[in-house]
Amino acid sequence: MSCPGRPHPITIVALLCVAAWLGPRPAMAQEASGSIATRYRDPANRLIQAALADTTAYRRLEFLADRIGNRPSGSEPLERAIDWALAMMKSDGLSQVRGERVMVPHWVRGAESAELIVPRALPLHLLGLGGTIGTPSKGITAPVLVVESFDELTRRAAEAKGKIVVFDFPMASDRPPFQAYDEAVQYRVNGATAGARVGARAVLIRSVATFSIQSPHTGIMRYDSTAGRIPTAALSVEDAELLHRLQQQGESVVVRLAMDDRVLAEAPSRNVVAELPGTDRPDEVVVIGGHIDSWDVGQGAVDDGGGALAAWEAVRLLKELGLRPRRTVRVVLWTSEETGGRGGMAYRDQHQSELNGHVLAIESDNGVFAPTGFALRGSDSAAAVARQVGGLLEQVRASEIERETEGPEADVQPLAEAGVPAMGLRVDASRYFWYHHSAGDTFDKIVPAELARCIAALAVMAYVAADLPDPLPR
Amino acid sequence: MSCPGRPHPITIVALLCVAAWLGPRPAMAQEASGSIATRYRDPANRLIQAALADTTAYRRLEFLADRIGNRPSGSEPLERAIDWALAMMKSDGLSQVRGERVMVPHWVRGAESAELIVPRALPLHLLGLGGTIGTPSKGITAPVLVVESFDELTRRAAEAKGKIVVFDFPMASDRPPFQAYDEAVQYRVNGATAGARVGARAVLIRSVATFSIQSPHTGIMRYDSTAGRIPTAALSVEDAELLHRLQQQGESVVVRLAMDDRVLAEAPSRNVVAELPGTDRPDEVVVIGGHIDSWDVGQGAVDDGGGALAAWEAVRLLKELGLRPRRTVRVVLWTSEETGGRGGMAYRDQHQSELNGHVLAIESDNGVFAPTGFALRGSDSAAAVARQVGGLLEQVRASEIERETEGPEADVQPLAEAGVPAMGLRVDASRYFWYHHSAGDTFDKIVPAELARCIAALAVMAYVAADLPDPLPR
Repeated sequence: MSCPGRPHPITIVALLCVAAWLGPRPAMAQEASGSIATRYRDPANRLIQAALADTTAYRRLEFLADRIGNRPSGSEPLERAIDWALAMMKSDGLSQVRGERVMVPHWVRGAESAELIVPRALPLHLLGLGGTIGTPSKGITAPVLVVESFDELTRRAAEAKGKIVVFDFPMASDRPPFQAYDEAVQYRVNGATAGARVGARAVLIRSVATFSIQSPHTGIMRYDSTAGRIPTAALSVEDAELLHRLQQQGESVVVRLAMDDRVLAEAPSRNVVAELPGTDRPDEVVVIGGHIDSWDVGQGAVDDGGGALAAWEAVRLLKELGLRPRRTVRVVLWTSEETGGRGGMAYRDQHQSELNGHVLAIESDNGVFAPTGFALRGSDSAAAVARQVGGLLEQVRASEIERETEGPEADVQPLAEAGVPAMGLRVDASRYFWYHHSAGDTFDKIVPAELARCIAALAVMAYVAADLPDPLPR
Repeated sequence: MSCPGRPHPITIVALLCVAAWLGPRPAMAQEASGSIATRYRDPANRLIQAALADTTAYRRLEFLADRIGNRPSGSEPLERAIDWALAMMKSDGLSQVRGERVMVPHWVRGAESAELIVPRALPLHLLGLGGTIGTPSKGITAPVLVVESFDELTRRAAEAKGKIVVFDFPMASDRPPFQAYDEAVQYRVNGATAGARVGARAVLIRSVATFSIQSPHTGIMRYDSTAGRIPTAALSVEDAELLHRLQQQGESVVVRLAMDDRVLAEAPSRNVVAELPGTDRPDEVVVIGGHIDSWDVGQGAVDDGGGALAAWEAVRLLKELGLRPRRTVRVVLWTSEETGGRGGMAYRDQHQSELNGHVLAIESDNGVFAPTGFALRGSDSAAAVARQVGGLLEQVRASEIERETEGPEADVQPLAEAGVPAMGLRVDASRYFWYHHSAGDTFDKIVPAELARCIAALAVMAYVAADLPDPLPR
């Protein structure tokens, strides 16, 4: 069950739903609720039925994953995927289909290896982090210092000089996945800089993941202009724990690290953009999308092929069902999200003059698992309306509207910061970090019925937001 | 909760426990139950308390896993692990500590690679199966035929000639893990022969696993003397499904396979044997053990380092607590279980003349997860006694006695076939096949509290069986 617009811990949701139902409500919200429920019940149900019966997005995602594969920023497969999406969107009958130029980072993974040398020879499982420099060609052979945190490194700074520093910081499994991720990912993003400041020769992190079968997880890292640049990679959870145990056993630990990763010149890419023009107010826009790029391992099926396809399919279904709202619905498949959100920033910059007319920006980038609703970064008034739209999504159990004061997703964050109400699709993310940025992010992880519910939620939210008499209040 | 000696589906266990408690019982069993409960409650509780407080086995397993690592048949690390175990058993004060010679298969993994060539270039994730021959040095490049089963291969035999046959047979996740394993493992063991019979050049199987993050799982295969020998390997679940999907999409699929695996001459190894001599009847023996060898990936911590250490620790605790039973308790760490059970067969052959005095043989080889009890291959009368011993294990929730007509474990199977009552420790195996025979079988997967409960169950069962006035009825 769901309690529209009132997110609560699942254990008390039933009680609170009753309380919410019986308690007093602001007259205006109640009236508007009736209005949205009355006016949009029929098109919402048509969209939901069409999404639940749909296989187009699933089949297209299969093609993207299996035939094009992963799509790292700067790569030829990314541009091929963009060409394919543009051609398909034209064949869908969408308008103004175009690629909007974005210059993107171009980092390439070379041969990578790490091996334990002392106390015994053993190959380790690693993936270089996106943006890292390589090692000298003969590799780096150095003693290891394992620490649990930035604080421990600070305390043991004197021991780190000349060493390979390993951060064995575990991603918490007893908290909401994205909250635990935000904490652990600091080591992936800033670990190399912290290591460089204390004289380390390289930094290895424990993969940011809640479960592992010797599966390393990559992701973006950043150098700081005030510190040196040293190579950095993610070990599997198992290998990070092994090095830590060996150190705790009192052993000297020596590792050899060789990485031929390189940063190349920035490359041209494109945001994929297409529209369903509004009937009355075509200059007012609801943006909806996901990102078309991925990491260079696995197939980028969960992150974010599924999210991109779901957003695109939501718009295609509007077109197919002849549901043209008052305002324009614009699907955007952002490029280069993984390497710093260049696509999202470029969209904001290229559409600066239109942003006052952007009534809502929605992104799906948490996987297309069972949806729960949306996270909104926007005003209380916008939330009140969003909750009423959520009420139309009870059938697909996607009614909850959470509030965010940051984000809510990387590509719509620049729009949110410019004052556009912004939403992220929220899903059951319990499996997300098993596969995230690893070789295990493949098409088989997509559950068709969950994808279909995500499409339904996105289509209904986009349609109603684009058709309401008044724009979503800022 | 547990219902001693009466295995039931967990959902009705409470009801049935009450019924069992209230219902009539055979007078003899009741009397014997009282006797065992009265006589052995105190030593059982001492053993349980000692096992739950124990860290010796966990620390020794850590050493075995981290410092010696995996221990494939024929390898130097296996013999080093055997030397270490012999030395430790001597330091434990056990008697008759010796290595009993066994000749074992010696298969070595060389460089292995597989890549999709058509419809697009993509490295695949694989592990050669134990015992496989290699490919020619330039590899095998051939079209792929994916089938779901032996039956489908029979139907499509004409299509298989000259191809690489892929068996995409999924291990069922809706049945008890070992039942599903017995079915799926047929493709690993006999797939190459089935392929050779229809003219295939190589056989790839879908890894026998219930969950995957691009993790291939190895294991033994066998050639048939009436068919040709072709190379065989396990793909990750993801890659097997990918090849299958590409074929279903109507694509030609071509793969290049290169494997430098080799079968070498058999090598000498040893079963590790040590004893706690019986006070009254030293010639009557309870055997308890696990296998010391493992596959050549991961650390062999779950399969079967944990099982071997738990059985050994059970005997060490008897010694430490001064609990010397009437009969001899003999710990055996069998060698070369993974490559066909050579250690178990050799033990039977070397101890043929003593087998009439073997009252029970217990093996722990399903992982040291939360124990549930034991599976018994033996008479109804033996089961009645075993259930009474199970009653002493309610505190560690290991009271259930299942019945088996085969097995119950590879190394004690030869003894069971010779008439010795035999048991396997039974555990919650739901996680077992996530890691089994993969690089993910590492020490971090061991939960100390679960290991401790396994030790308690093994110690109590071995002690009581070795001390009962009458031997366990055959």
